[in-house]
Amino acid sequence: MSRTAVNDPLFEPGVTIPPAIFCIGLNYGKHAQETGASLPEFPVIFMKNPAAVTGHDGAVRLPASCVDPLQVDYEAELAVVIGKRALNVKPEEALEYVKGYTCANDISARRWQKHAGGGQWVRGKSFDTFCPMGPCLKGVDEIPDPSVLGIECRLNGEVMQQSNTSDMIFSVERIISFLSEDTTLLPGTVILTGTPSGVGFARKPPVFLRPGDRIETRIEGIGTLVNTVEKE
Amino acid sequence: MSRTAVNDPLFEPGVTIPPAIFCIGLNYGKHAQETGASLPEFPVIFMKNPAAVTGHDGAVRLPASCVDPLQVDYEAELAVVIGKRALNVKPEEALEYVKGYTCANDISARRWQKHAGGGQWVRGKSFDTFCPMGPCLKGVDEIPDPSVLGIECRLNGEVMQQSNTSDMIFSVERIISFLSEDTTLLPGTVILTGTPSGVGFARKPPVFLRPGDRIETRIEGIGTLVNTVEKE
Repeated sequence: MSRTAVNDPLFEPGVTIPPAIFCIGLNYGKHAQETGASLPEFPVIFMKNPAAVTGHDGAVRLPASCVDPLQVDYEAELAVVIGKRALNVKPEEALEYVKGYTCANDISARRWQKHAGGGQWVRGKSFDTFCPMGPCLKGVDEIPDPSVLGIECRLNGEVMQQSNTSDMIFSVERIISFLSEDTTLLPGTVILTGTPSGVGFARKPPVFLRPGDRIETRIEGIGTLVNTVEKE
Repeated sequence: MSRTAVNDPLFEPGVTIPPAIFCIGLNYGKHAQETGASLPEFPVIFMKNPAAVTGHDGAVRLPASCVDPLQVDYEAELAVVIGKRALNVKPEEALEYVKGYTCANDISARRWQKHAGGGQWVRGKSFDTFCPMGPCLKGVDEIPDPSVLGIECRLNGEVMQQSNTSDMIFSVERIISFLSEDTTLLPGTVILTGTPSGVGFARKPPVFLRPGDRIETRIEGIGTLVNTVEKE
C-alpha cells in the first residue's frame, strides 16, 4: 500500500498531495458518445479530493458504499503537473507552465457520480485511492508534444481503452489556458485531461472493478502505472 | 487587496490556502426550492479551487468572462475548518474534528455554473477571490453548537439572505460524517455548508454583483465578513 503524501506523517513518504486536482470530463469524442453526452462546447471541469492520490503499485480500494451495487470504474488519463503559478496563460505559452506528465486513472464510483451525487461528480471521484498516479514524472524535455501519445488501459491484461492524445477535443495547451482564466493554478496542481472510450459502465455487459483486478494505465513515452483492486 | 496564502511568496501573508474546499449544495430547503431543485436525498458535494480564497476586506473581482452577461452572485455560508485528519467519522464524534468556524461567501458565476459549465459547478465557483472567508476563526469552545446560528447576507446594507443554521437539511455533524466516508479530510480542509434562500439569480428581477457593491456575510457568534466588488 503506497498511499502517501508530504506534510502528513500519517502517510508514508513518496507521493505528493497536490494543492488541487482538476479534471476534464468528456474530452475524447468517442467517450462522450458512449456516455450519451453531446460534445462539450467548453471543457467540462470537476475536481477530485487531493487526498485521493495513490501511487504506482498502490491499491485501489473499493469503498463499502460503492460495492452494492458494484459500480467502480477505471478511466485512463494523461496527467499534467503544473510547474509554476499559472494565471491567464495563453495557449501558445501553456507548455512553459508544465513541470511534467504522468499516467493517472480517474477511478469513478458511478453510483455517486450519476445518481446519488445529485448530478455533481466530485464525490464519486474523490474516495481515498481513487487517483492513482505514476510510475514517474516525465519532464517537458522528454515529452515535447503531449498531443501524440498512445494511451491505453488494460484490465487483467485485456485492453479496455486504446486511443491517442491526438483524439482529445481540447488539447493540453487549450485546457491549461481555459483552466487558468481568472483562476490561479498553484505549482503542483494536477490536471487530468480526460479519458478515451472503453470505460466499464458503457460496455455491454458493463464491467466494474473487482477485488484482485489488475489495472494497467499505459501512456507512450511515460510508462505503465500498475494498481491492484482491493476490497476495503 | 488581501488575497493571500502561505507557502506562496506571490501571495501576501495572512490567509491560508486550504488543502481542499468542499461545498454542500442545496442544503437549506427554501434555497433548494427557489432554484427549482428538489430536496437532495444525500448532501450534494462540489469543490472550489483552494486558490480562490480571499480574506476579510479582500476584493471580490468580477472576471471578464463573467460580466457579459453579468451573472456573479453571492451565497452566505457557515464555513467549518477541519482540525485533524478525518476518515469515517461518526456524526456523534464529528465536532471533535472541527478546529473552528468562520463566515464564507460561495461567490458563484451562474453562467458557468448553470449552462457553460456542462452541468458541473466547479468552474463557476473557482475563479480567484470567489471564496472570501473571515473575519476570524471561532473555536469549538466558543461555538459549542453550530446548528443555532443566525446567518445573513447584506448587499449594500440591504438584507438579501436571512436564516438560521437550524434550517440546514444536513447538519454540520452529518456533513462531516458523510464527507469523510472513505474520504480523508486533511487538517485545514474547509467545508462550506450551503446557503439559505435569497440568492440574487432567483430574485425577480435578478440581482447580480456589480463593481462597488459591498457584501456583508454575518453569522451569529462569529462576526461580519466584509468584501467589496471590483471589476477585474
